[in-house]
Order: sequence, then C-alpha cells, then structure tokens
Amino acid sequence: MKLVSYWDHTAATPEPSYGAVVGESIVDLATPAVRTLREALTTEGIDGISRRLAKKGPAEGISLSNVKLLPPITEPHKILCVGLNYLLHAKEANLPVPTRPSVFVRFSSSFVGHEEPVLLPAESEQFDYEAEIAVIIGRRARRVSEAEAMQVVAGYSCMAENSIRDWQRHSNQATPGKNFVGTGAFGPWLVTPDEAPVPEEMTVAGRLNGETVQHDSGANMIFSIPQIIAYLSTFTELLPGDVIATGTPAGVGMSRKPQRYLREGDVFEVAISGLGELRNPVRNGF
Amino acid sequence: MKLVSYWDHTAATPEPSYGAVVGESIVDLATPAVRTLREALTTEGIDGISRRLAKKGPAEGISLSNVKLLPPITEPHKILCVGLNYLLHAKEANLPVPTRPSVFVRFSSSFVGHEEPVLLPAESEQFDYEAEIAVIIGRRARRVSEAEAMQVVAGYSCMAENSIRDWQRHSNQATPGKNFVGTGAFGPWLVTPDEAPVPEEMTVAGRLNGETVQHDSGANMIFSIPQIIAYLSTFTELLPGDVIATGTPAGVGMSRKPQRYLREGDVFEVAISGLGELRNPVRNGF
Repeated sequence: MKLVSYWDHTAATPEPSYGAVVGESIVDLATPAVRTLREALTTEGIDGISRRLAKKGPAEGISLSNVKLLPPITEPHKILCVGLNYLLHAKEANLPVPTRPSVFVRFSSSFVGHEEPVLLPAESEQFDYEAEIAVIIGRRARRVSEAEAMQVVAGYSCMAENSIRDWQRHSNQATPGKNFVGTGAFGPWLVTPDEAPVPEEMTVAGRLNGETVQHDSGANMIFSIPQIIAYLSTFTELLPGDVIATGTPAGVGMSRKPQRYLREGDVFEVAISGLGELRNPVRNGF
Repeated sequence: MKLVSYWDHTAATPEPSYGAVVGESIVDLATPAVRTLREALTTEGIDGISRRLAKKGPAEGISLSNVKLLPPITEPHKILCVGLNYLLHAKEANLPVPTRPSVFVRFSSSFVGHEEPVLLPAESEQFDYEAEIAVIIGRRARRVSEAEAMQVVAGYSCMAENSIRDWQRHSNQATPGKNFVGTGAFGPWLVTPDEAPVPEEMTVAGRLNGETVQHDSGANMIFSIPQIIAYLSTFTELLPGDVIATGTPAGVGMSRKPQRYLREGDVFEVAISGLGELRNPVRNGF
C-alpha cells in the first residue's frame, strides 16, 4: 500500500484525512473514531488498514490532483533523526565518523508535504538540502533486537531533512538549525515494506533544479536501519507513527565549491527507488 | 495559582485530570471538553483557568495525599532544554561557555511526576542529577522579542533534568542520554508568575539524600529566560504547554571527586525558592 495524509480542499467541509493511493486516486480510510494515519497505525496497524482498504471499492476514490498532500504522519509523537550516517557525508562535513548514531530531534512543524513550498527563513542564507530515507514505525518497541527490528517498520517515505547550517552550528547541538518552521519536507506517501525495496537496495537521490546533487545507496549507511531501531529503542519507546530520518548522502550545498544554498525559485526533489519522488519549491519565508 | 495534573486512584473511575492546589487540596478543573492542563492553557489561558477556579468552592477539593501527581503538563508538544547555562557548570563539564543557547529536546516519556521513582536504566551506571528551573509557555509565540518574552510565560516548575552521561556522549548530540524512559522528573506543580519570584531571584538547589549538592541563583544563568524564549521562538513556534528547561548549576555527580552517580535507594530533590520541592527516589529500571 501507499498511504497518504491529505487535505481535500474541494470537499464541502474540508478537513485533514488519510487514505490509500490506488492508481491516480485516494481511497479515503478515515472513520469517525480513527481520524489520522497515526491513530490507524496505533489502533489497527498496517494489517487492519489493509483489510479495510480491501473492503472498499475504487469507485470511492478522490483524484490525487484535487488534494493537498500533507506529511504522511501529520502529528508523530517523535521524529528522531540520525546525522552523519553516510561515510562520504561525514567526510565532506569535516566531522569524525560516528561510532554510535548521532541523534537529534525535529518537530513536525519543521516539515511540509509534497509540492508545498519549503521556507527560507529571514534569519539565514544557509538553507541546505538533505535527501533522506524516512522510516515510519508501526508498532510499539522498546529494546527491540536488530534481528527483530524490521518487524516494527510500518513503511518508508522520502524526506528532505533540510538544515539551516549557521543555526545548526550555534552550539554543539543541532536543534535550532533543524527546526525552523516549514524548512523540511516529508512525503509524498508511506510505502509499506511489501511494496518497497529493502533499504539496502534503495537508491537515494537529491535533485536541485533537475540536476542530481546527491546520489548514494541505502547499503552505504554507516548504521543500518535495524541497528538504528535497536539503538533508539534502547532509551525510548518507539510508538506507531514515530518517524526516523536515516541520514543524508554526500553532496550537500555546504560542501560544494562554491557553496550552493537554496534560494527562492529553486526546486529540490528527493527521489528514492521504489518510494517515489518528493518535490518542493523554495520560497522566502518571513 | 498552583496548577497540577494528577491521577486520583481513589476515584470510582480514575483517570488523569488537572486542577488548582488550594491549601492541602486540589480543586479539580477538568471539563468534558477540556481534559488536560495543556488544553486549558490553549483554549482559555491562565486568566480563564483563574476565573473558573474563582467560581468553584474549596469544599469540592480532593486531598493532595490521595492522588498521584503527574508532570504538570502531561503531553507537551515540545520540551526544549538549554544545556550549559550556568558558568560554573560549563567549566566543571570542561566544555566551552556557549555563545548561543545549546538546545536539545526531551520527550515527555523521559519524565515522571513528584514522588514517583526515577529509573536507572540497565544499560548505564552513570545516572546523574540536574536541578533546573522549568518554564511553561502559556501563549503561542513566534519571533517574540526579549522585551515581550515574559508575557508568554504561563508559569514555572521544578525539574530534575537528569542525564545518562555515557549515552549523552555517544556522539556529538545529547539526545540518547537525555531520553531514557522515566529518568527525569517534573513538578510538583506549575506556579503562575504572580505567585512566584522573578527568575533572577529564584534559588535553585539540588539535594542528594538531604545534602545540598547544587546551589545557585537564577540570576547566574548565561542566557536569561527572555533571551532563551526570544531565541527559541525565532526558529520554532512556542505553543501553550510547551516546556523549557533552563539549565543546571554546578555540582553534578559527574564532576565530583570521586564521581557520585545516582543509585537505587537515593533520593534527589529539586528545591526552588517560591516554587516548592520536587522529590524523587531512585530505583533500578529494567
């Protein structure tokens, strides 16, 4: 399945909803009791969502072109991000290769959905792109082993885990540079593991105005997705709908010569094989 | 007002609620529509809560001794923590004095309420105490100026912003060492500014088994609360119920000679003048 959260602005009473993408349409799956994809993952899981979808006819679909896509999980409890997880990116950033995952947190307010503009804040000119594989958690997990970690994955998505570089370096902690409102993007949809390649076979590409600026394989992660899940779940309980960003490959704007930061009018795309493409124009914020 | 979130285990149908402390009793303030203190701050603010309290009689109170206190805000959207905000603590940690606030994030699952045990995880023996002033936000705020920052404060509380030191140093980011489940504490209550000293006149003390191990004045913060609020609200929108931890004074266990980490049977107290005392025994987790 491909699962989306969306806003149907043509509806009589538009409000956020969620559903499955079938062809060029969305089959809405919201119920009065379960109004978000996070709640659906929590109460019935991917299997329950799949069974409900099977009962619905495609005739009920809403055209994808009529809706605004939101981040697949609109209000995750947690968004945990692993930095420096590709060798060449750690090298280009002149930072030591980590021996444990480097983990920071983003709030959902720092993300927009597919095709929405990402916002260059007035306080910086160092708005940098970061194409990443995002993992969405499907089941509660504490101290899960690497061997069992993939069982708690609900699916994958594309993420533009963009950074405000100068604010990221204000101190030893990355939080400020990673949490400007509307700087990142997440979507277009969650792809369940049965329809996705294994992460080691995913190709992650970042494209700036059509030019490929980042390109690597999920196989080159320093910490694999099972290792990351096992590590994170040692200290915190992962919950359905939690999101994990798995790090960006080399090629970010900060490390190019000359440096190339995002500016109004640019378009940044994250293309991951088997997951689709996330596309966002850049606009000046306020 | 002193506002609490609590669990009345003597009630016929016990569930979390919130109210105001009047003498030794809690006047419950939950309504069918507004079931948490965070929601009350969001929908009616401190002024609205105060008006509702004024209409209720003290005869409706529930004895404080009959309830379990929860963190004053049970599910904040964000908990933003400023590290290294007292000069002597930065020095004892052998870290440079920050020129901008060093900001990391904690999840609410890493906190318990007053008198609940804080948990030493099985993965570490370096469980360290950190007494701090916590600020709770009362109004939405983005890019608020230092001059106007105090207007968005709903109140203050005590926080034991405890750390797992070895996990805090696994990488350049503090997240893992700051987010083990149930390692921190927050409470007993939110004290509104009209009943609290100004932060510059608050004395922050940490007591381990009755011995004062941390003691400093809020006046010695490197970044004042207005400066912190202005800085944080530059990149993110502060929301009612958001929590800001303002840093710990010198005297943590890591820096003592010999080092003194928390172990089962210890009791750590955070005492802040005008705010009260937060007390938590230490227990081995699992």
